Amino acid sequence: MSSTLKTWVEVPELSDFSIYNLPFGIFSTTSKTKRIGVAIGDQILDLNAAHSLRIFHGLNIDKEILVNDYLNDFIALGKNITNQVRLIIQEHLCDDSSPLRKHEPFIEMSDATMHLPVKVGDYTDFYSSIEHATNVGKMFRDPENALLPNWKHLPVGYHGRASSIIVSGVDIHRPNGQTKPADEPPVYGPSQRIDFELEMAFIVGKQSELGDAVTTKEAEDHIFGMVLFNDWSARDIQKWEYVPLGPFLGKSFASSVSPWVVTLEALESFRVNGPNQDPEVLPYLQYEGQKNYDINLEVLIQPESQNEASTVSKSNFKFMYWNMAQQLAHHTVNGCNLNVGDMMASGTISGKDENSYGSMLELSWAGSKSVKLNNGEERKFLKDGDTVIMKGHSEKNGIRVGFGEVRSKLLPAK
Amino acid sequence: MSSTLKTWVEVPELSDFSIYNLPFGIFSTTSKTKRIGVAIGDQILDLNAAHSLRIFHGLNIDKEILVNDYLNDFIALGKNITNQVRLIIQEHLCDDSSPLRKHEPFIEMSDATMHLPVKVGDYTDFYSSIEHATNVGKMFRDPENALLPNWKHLPVGYHGRASSIIVSGVDIHRPNGQTKPADEPPVYGPSQRIDFELEMAFIVGKQSELGDAVTTKEAEDHIFGMVLFNDWSARDIQKWEYVPLGPFLGKSFASSVSPWVVTLEALESFRVNGPNQDPEVLPYLQYEGQKNYDINLEVLIQPESQNEASTVSKSNFKFMYWNMAQQLAHHTVNGCNLNVGDMMASGTISGKDENSYGSMLELSWAGSKSVKLNNGEERKFLKDGDTVIMKGHSEKNGIRVGFGEVRSKLLPAK
Repeated sequence: MSSTLKTWVEVPELSDFSIYNLPFGIFSTTSKTKRIGVAIGDQILDLNAAHSLRIFHGLNIDKEILVNDYLNDFIALGKNITNQVRLIIQEHLCDDSSPLRKHEPFIEMSDATMHLPVKVGDYTDFYSSIEHATNVGKMFRDPENALLPNWKHLPVGYHGRASSIIVSGVDIHRPNGQTKPADEPPVYGPSQRIDFELEMAFIVGKQSELGDAVTTKEAEDHIFGMVLFNDWSARDIQKWEYVPLGPFLGKSFASSVSPWVVTLEALESFRVNGPNQDPEVLPYLQYEGQKNYDINLEVLIQPESQNEASTVSKSNFKFMYWNMAQQLAHHTVNGCNLNVGDMMASGTISGKDENSYGSMLELSWAGSKSVKLNNGEERKFLKDGDTVIMKGHSEKNGIRVGFGEVRSKLLPAK
Repeated sequence: MSSTLKTWVEVPELSDFSIYNLPFGIFSTTSKTKRIGVAIGDQILDLNAAHSLRIFHGLNIDKEILVNDYLNDFIALGKNITNQVRLIIQEHLCDDSSPLRKHEPFIEMSDATMHLPVKVGDYTDFYSSIEHATNVGKMFRDPENALLPNWKHLPVGYHGRASSIIVSGVDIHRPNGQTKPADEPPVYGPSQRIDFELEMAFIVGKQSELGDAVTTKEAEDHIFGMVLFNDWSARDIQKWEYVPLGPFLGKSFASSVSPWVVTLEALESFRVNGPNQDPEVLPYLQYEGQKNYDINLEVLIQPESQNEASTVSKSNFKFMYWNMAQQLAHHTVNGCNLNVGDMMASGTISGKDENSYGSMLELSWAGSKSVKLNNGEERKFLKDGDTVIMKGHSEKNGIRVGFGEVRSKLLPAK
């Protein structure tokens, strides 16, 4: 990737969707037909329309793959193809004589509806931020021994609900459920402690067979790209249900993702070293090279009938103790098979500073203090009508590659 | 259902697949084309071939639904259609003048290969046997307070891995993974404590929308049918990983299911009352009528190079403290959406007697004693080469409706 790419498309200066990014997503317009698009500036390149202009003529890609409800079939072509598609687009968007310039197969983002980018097979949620795990341990267990004994030896994770993963813009209802007031029998009703969790998720791009382990070295070859991930949580439901088998209804009512899948290749320039891992991990979890990514993250809350959103957290994906290659190697070490479209989320991404915590649980320290919004309102957990917005972008040497946002409003309980 | 149905098909006396059963499955023969079949005696009725004989001419069913890799599209037609299909087949198999008798669209089971019956969207595993939960609590926690505080208030469950659900006959490898010897650092290697779990699973037949709760009254309308379910477990991996987020790699290497989906309608005559639930459950978990099913279950182990399998457990699905309607109502109380093909397993089904425990963990009481096999061998957990076989059937007034078996061999670690 050169730092001197110049596109003829008008791209706003702080756009997440620079010529260096070119993420993939599923969009529709008034015609309702879902199809693959590539984001550039404030526009969407219609991939099938571009294909009709024969810019991918060396590649064997059927229309059915591009006019599709999901990216899965496209991703399943393999990085050998999908990387070429992205690079060909990049080249054409920088070439004044490209047929894309003459025929303009673009749609304004404001005229399009974005959809869930992939059909998620299995969804796994990790717990890989040491700051988050430590905070939770301090609040609910022993402040002196906040991390459980296994935490530094393996990337703790659990299976989540795939069916309720929704795209940015789809609003959710406050879930009902069973909770347990102290010293009283359990009760049924709307959760009183709705929270977000600031996460990122990667999307599996290459399957593995049952019985086969994927090494940390091979792992990134199995990762197509990443999205922002809001792992909605009902803390009171979770607290009562989760022992001994883990989170269930406290999480499964919804998880929201950003619509544009940023490829690992677009993030290549933003690799950084991860935290030092001490004690040393077992050989199957060791890795070489830089496997963390410097991605600035931000969470905002916009109360009902306010035009302005308040930033409540600024964090960074580079803080992760366990990286994606380790997560994927661990996930498959027992022979568990992967499918294209599987989603694996990071777990809440908290930093060291109080204003970098990735959940209201931590920001309000289990409801013991309030978080101030710009308009003077205060929050311990989320209120009906609150819109939660998460943003993420990498930036280096004047080059910006971003994720746009994931946004969803909390509606009252049904 | 009458007790006097007489079919012209030859059905062995103790066959699970009597004229009262007629379960659905996916099979192929030498042609390799997967398609829907209905089991009767030792034969499979080819549903598409039967359809060609116009026996379903009142129903609008495309060939593409019947010649299909999975049952999902068929199930999605709704019980209104699928029940009619089953009853029409039942009628024809009892009618000497049926075209099915003349044209014989049957395949010998021994000539067919069975496949995974459904494409599983999400898989959930419950923990609904009070005997099992009590045994585990006694072994690993406090014998005086074996059940955790939430256990009698809600059907505890967790999300499992869908990708590694395999059909009977597919063998598995002993998984590798991370375990923690006492007073030593964790190690990597093959699990030393491979176990089965005797479970049954139901298959969701009707979707529900995100945000909607399904009541206990509506729940069975969302259940297409049931299969036997062996929830393979690696106890040493599970023990080290599962706090605080639940079982992950200790389970995700494989779960085996029986190939024939027995409909709830075929099990109608075998309804029984469930255990008394005390304390009273919250209104959303209360139910009317008989929601438990009397299904005899058996687990056998057949060591490598032995022709004979030894019965190690006899249990019954009727022991379940939480029934399927309660599980489904609980699963959706927070608005979690269901899709056709979702699978929900019961959790290990143990009875009160020691020989009715549904796992080696319980039968060997955490490895503290041995289970004797017929050939004199002993087991605490499973050995490489062991084939685990689970069988299940209901029987009443001379009518038998069964599940066949789920069978899989444990191969050495890779």
